[in-house]
Amino acid sequence: MITVEAAQDLLFSLVSPLEVEFVPLANAAGRVLAQDVVATRNQPPFSASSMDGYAMKSDEVELHAMFKVVGEAAAGHAFQEIVGAGQAVRIFTGAPVPEGTDFVVIQENITRRGDLITITDEPGTKSNIRAAGVDFKIGTTLESPRQLAPQDIALMASMNIHQIPVTRKPVVALISTGDELVMPGETPGPDQIIASNTFGLKAMLEGLGAEVRVLPIARDTEQSLITAFGLAKSADLIVTIGGASVGDHDLVGPVAKDLGMEQSFYKIKMRPGKPLMAGGLGDSVLIGLPGNPVSAIVCGHVFLAPVIRLMLGLKDIVPTLQTATLTHALEANGPRQHYMRAHVDNGQMTVFENQDSSLLTVLADANALAIRPASDPACEDGRRIHYLPI
Amino acid sequence: MITVEAAQDLLFSLVSPLEVEFVPLANAAGRVLAQDVVATRNQPPFSASSMDGYAMKSDEVELHAMFKVVGEAAAGHAFQEIVGAGQAVRIFTGAPVPEGTDFVVIQENITRRGDLITITDEPGTKSNIRAAGVDFKIGTTLESPRQLAPQDIALMASMNIHQIPVTRKPVVALISTGDELVMPGETPGPDQIIASNTFGLKAMLEGLGAEVRVLPIARDTEQSLITAFGLAKSADLIVTIGGASVGDHDLVGPVAKDLGMEQSFYKIKMRPGKPLMAGGLGDSVLIGLPGNPVSAIVCGHVFLAPVIRLMLGLKDIVPTLQTATLTHALEANGPRQHYMRAHVDNGQMTVFENQDSSLLTVLADANALAIRPASDPACEDGRRIHYLPI
Repeated sequence: MITVEAAQDLLFSLVSPLEVEFVPLANAAGRVLAQDVVATRNQPPFSASSMDGYAMKSDEVELHAMFKVVGEAAAGHAFQEIVGAGQAVRIFTGAPVPEGTDFVVIQENITRRGDLITITDEPGTKSNIRAAGVDFKIGTTLESPRQLAPQDIALMASMNIHQIPVTRKPVVALISTGDELVMPGETPGPDQIIASNTFGLKAMLEGLGAEVRVLPIARDTEQSLITAFGLAKSADLIVTIGGASVGDHDLVGPVAKDLGMEQSFYKIKMRPGKPLMAGGLGDSVLIGLPGNPVSAIVCGHVFLAPVIRLMLGLKDIVPTLQTATLTHALEANGPRQHYMRAHVDNGQMTVFENQDSSLLTVLADANALAIRPASDPACEDGRRIHYLPI
Repeated sequence: MITVEAAQDLLFSLVSPLEVEFVPLANAAGRVLAQDVVATRNQPPFSASSMDGYAMKSDEVELHAMFKVVGEAAAGHAFQEIVGAGQAVRIFTGAPVPEGTDFVVIQENITRRGDLITITDEPGTKSNIRAAGVDFKIGTTLESPRQLAPQDIALMASMNIHQIPVTRKPVVALISTGDELVMPGETPGPDQIIASNTFGLKAMLEGLGAEVRVLPIARDTEQSLITAFGLAKSADLIVTIGGASVGDHDLVGPVAKDLGMEQSFYKIKMRPGKPLMAGGLGDSVLIGLPGNPVSAIVCGHVFLAPVIRLMLGLKDIVPTLQTATLTHALEANGPRQHYMRAHVDNGQMTVFENQDSSLLTVLADANALAIRPASDPACEDGRRIHYLPI
């Protein structure tokens, strides 16, 4: 048996970041920036007024001083002449500051009669001008890799970068296996159940930025699996669910081997989800997950999510664990690292009592997987416990 | 001036949850469940083996006992007869437990010769059987409202619920205003800048579950705004950006009033983003945000996000604030609640020094808005500070 970290490293060695593609800015949110982008303009491109008021020369600004208003500057409409001594320009927020001026007195401190204005309230020392290039300058870089947040999109818009270099979305083919499975909406026979892992994993993988193809359920025959693998061709990652153990009905391993996969079986020191299969298959990577619903989703968080992040070119592919405070005591853990369904609310963690790996109801109530290291002794309440948000 | 909470309450009074629609399970992730869903089957639907082994009667199980194997039960293939005394059935994980048996001895504890098996290792007391209905029973409910996580999708699949009642996505029309703006990809004039708020807010709102329409930029004329409002018809929420203050060029208020809006202007005790305009316009709600890039995005987090959550029917629409530990001292805050761009890493918070509200670069470096209450005194490093993740 190997540790979770060792199994992750083995998986990561099978995978590389995908190539770059360009998408319109409006579709780039959530994607991973694949190349640094560089501003080709300054922001603001000109010195701009940050208030509504009057632009003038700073050395003429003093209480009771009087000026002649010679024009107006509004956002998008610069005043085109040079402002002379004793002159002022009516100016609005966002307008370019006219040549010859370097101070804006806010309108609240001015009294106007016709074209004449007087500074009637103390104007202070703040110029109310944003210097050209104060936000960014030509050459300012937004560094890759990063998953693009709304504020990154706003910044790239402001830089006038409208085609964004992002990592192509990994294509994942999902194959559920087993004669007992039917698809949601079908009528199961008396000894059948509904395929649930496929849909849970699809939602998880799409949330991570993958493009997911749900393939037909592979039955417990070699031919059915061969057909499914055929349909999975061109996927970056093929994920099988179930049938990857070593029982008489576990055909995924033998069939994938016949198709040329150099496979590895890992027995991992973790609960739930001990067995995992992985290897290269053609141009794809195949990962075989356990068929048990909770095991499949937990392995999805622990193994598939970092693999997708690696394919997307991200750096911190194994997320930094969070910590929360246990609200109750926990028994000692066994010899395998245990991912326990738990609920975290405002830093307080409740670990659910029934951790049977068949219970999707308990998983649906969870928003965290509490992580108990192998052979962790009993915990008192109040202890800080690591967890993975789910 | 009113507090942020008072302004939120005023906005929330304008909005109601939207109606229910049904979407296929495969498209339901991230949507908000609008009605409770109820299981119409048990899971597992039958008592099922949790291991590969042999099914037999528990009162016959003891070390060295011998049985005749009378058949096989595999996942999806029940053994159809009744098992008698001294008999056993070969069984695989997920298979229905045959009638007449109530115990599975795992294959590792069995020696088989032809049709005869002997229990050659201590079988223990665990039956290795999952009782029918142990995960959920007919009538088990998944409660609304909830934003559907992958584990909820898996559970509903398992319940064979394939059409999911979700709240319709709010349709948001975004209108940027100002003669100084051009769209990304266009060539700005010397006194123009690129519309960035629209793209940042679009990304944020889509991430919250809205459907966003970006309308053409409204110029600083009444007719241009009237055209934009016409295009916004049928949106649940119209968001204007810029032009909603009270300056000579701020036409959003007067034009919306001419179109029949009962409007309110709020001066809010917050930085950045003091002015906000809101009111009903036809069947829509209109919210006017400040044009300043950082103010618009901060107001998006503080005001638009809860409004969208309310429209989606969620309960906790104003998120519980997180806390992190300040890595450095902070000066006293002024009279307005201050949303400061900050970076939180593993519970440690660094608040950026330059909080000028025109700086998108500072916003792009941030992953949190630290919240300083009005008139908060100076803070030492090590203090716990509330924040909103962004």
